[in-house]
Amino acid sequence: MSASPAAPAPGAYVRQLYHFAFDPHSRLVRLALGEKKLSFEDNPVRYWEPDDAFLRLNPSGLLPVLTETPEAGSQGQNHRICENRALLEHLEEVAPTPNLWPRDINERAEARRLVGWFERKFDYEVNALLLHEKMEKRLIGGGAPDIGAMRAGREALKDHLRYFESLLATRDWLAGQSLSYADFACAAQLSVLDYFDEVNWTRYPHLKTWYMVMKSRPCFRPLLADKLPGVPASRHYAELDF
Amino acid sequence: MSASPAAPAPGAYVRQLYHFAFDPHSRLVRLALGEKKLSFEDNPVRYWEPDDAFLRLNPSGLLPVLTETPEAGSQGQNHRICENRALLEHLEEVAPTPNLWPRDINERAEARRLVGWFERKFDYEVNALLLHEKMEKRLIGGGAPDIGAMRAGREALKDHLRYFESLLATRDWLAGQSLSYADFACAAQLSVLDYFDEVNWTRYPHLKTWYMVMKSRPCFRPLLADKLPGVPASRHYAELDF
Repeated sequence: MSASPAAPAPGAYVRQLYHFAFDPHSRLVRLALGEKKLSFEDNPVRYWEPDDAFLRLNPSGLLPVLTETPEAGSQGQNHRICENRALLEHLEEVAPTPNLWPRDINERAEARRLVGWFERKFDYEVNALLLHEKMEKRLIGGGAPDIGAMRAGREALKDHLRYFESLLATRDWLAGQSLSYADFACAAQLSVLDYFDEVNWTRYPHLKTWYMVMKSRPCFRPLLADKLPGVPASRHYAELDF
Repeated sequence: MSASPAAPAPGAYVRQLYHFAFDPHSRLVRLALGEKKLSFEDNPVRYWEPDDAFLRLNPSGLLPVLTETPEAGSQGQNHRICENRALLEHLEEVAPTPNLWPRDINERAEARRLVGWFERKFDYEVNALLLHEKMEKRLIGGGAPDIGAMRAGREALKDHLRYFESLLATRDWLAGQSLSYADFACAAQLSVLDYFDEVNWTRYPHLKTWYMVMKSRPCFRPLLADKLPGVPASRHYAELDF
C-alpha cells in the first residue's frame, strides 16, 4: 500500500463568503450554507465605505458574494457567485441535499416569490426606513435617526408581520408544506430587526412559534453570536425560548 | 379508424399572462415566452390602480403573473407563478429549449447577477426617477414631471449604459458567450426607455449593435407594436435599423 495522502473529495472547494453580519441578504446565504453543511471562510465587507477591491468582485457593490476555489489537488474551475438570486440557485445545484426549493412546482414558485418579496418589497418598505435609521446611519456616521422615517418603517413592518402570520396560520412552513429558502429569507430578515428589538413577537403567535423553530436550527447559531459594536442585542435575541 | 379528435400534447397548458405593456419586468417575461415559443393570452393589469382581484393573484401587487391551466383533456395541475424570479426559473424548467440560463456555472451565475441588477439597482437608480416622472405620473394623474428627478435618473442611466457598453465591448452577449435571460432583461428595460427616446444609442456603439440584434428577434415584434395612449413612441422605436 502506498502512503499517499487521502485525495480531497471530487468537487471539494474552499469557499470565501464576502458579507456583512447584519445584512439580511448575507444572513440568508450564511443560513443556506450552514443548512447544506458547506463550510466557508469569513470576509467581512464594510459595504458602506468605498472599496475598490470589492467592486472588482461585484460591480454592483451589493452583498453577499461567494467564491469557490478547488482544494489543492482537486479538479474544478474557480467560481464567483454574486448576490442571492444567483447564490441560492447555485447552492441548490451544487449541494442539492437538503433541497431548499420545494419539489412541487407551485410550492417552488411560492418559495421563490417569497424570497423575491424581501428584495422587491420588504427592503424598500421596511429596511430602507427602519434599518437605515437604526443601523446604517450609525455605520456611515449619518447623524441622529429620523423619528418620522422610523415610525413609517415600523408601520410597514406591522403589515408585513401580519401577512407572514396569516401565511403561517394555515401552513407548516412559509411557502407551504416544506422548509425552503423562503423560511431562511424571512428568518434572516427578522433576525436583524430582532437584534434591534423591533419585532413584537407576542402579537404574532404563529410567527413566533415558527421563529423559535428556525432559531433552534444549528445553522442559526453563528448569527445569534453576532455583535454590532456599540449596540447591544435585544435581551431575547439569542434566547431559543423567548 | 375512429374519428376522435387529436388529443392535446401531454403537459399542454393554456397560459394567461397578467402584465402591463410598459412594465420592464413584464416585457422580460413576454420576450422569454416568445423565445420559448409558448403562446399566452393577454391580461393587461393597470397596476397603479387598486385591484383586489389582482392582489388575490399576487399579494405583492407586483407584475407579472403567469397562470397555466391544463388544456381540456390534458393531465396536469394548475400553476400560478408570480414575478420574474420565479417565472424565469419556471420557464427554464418546463421549457428548457432554447436554454436561457447558460450551461457554464460562472456564466449562469453572471446571467442571474445581471437579471438581479435590474431589480436591485436599475429599478431604483433609473426607473424610480426617470420612468416614474415620464410615465407613471401620467398613469396615476400625478402632475407635471419633476425636472430635478428626471435629470438625476438620466445621469444614473448614463452610468448604467456605460457599464453595459463595457461588458459588450469584450463579450458576445451580456453575460458572456451565450444569449441568456440577462440579454432579455436588459433589452426589456432599455426598450421601455427607448419608447420615451431616453437612450442616446450613438454614444454606445457595442450596445447599439447588440440592441439591433435583440430587436430583430421574432419575440421582440409584439413589444415594438405597443402603444401608450397619448404618448407617441420615439421615431426609431420600432425601426430595426436605427
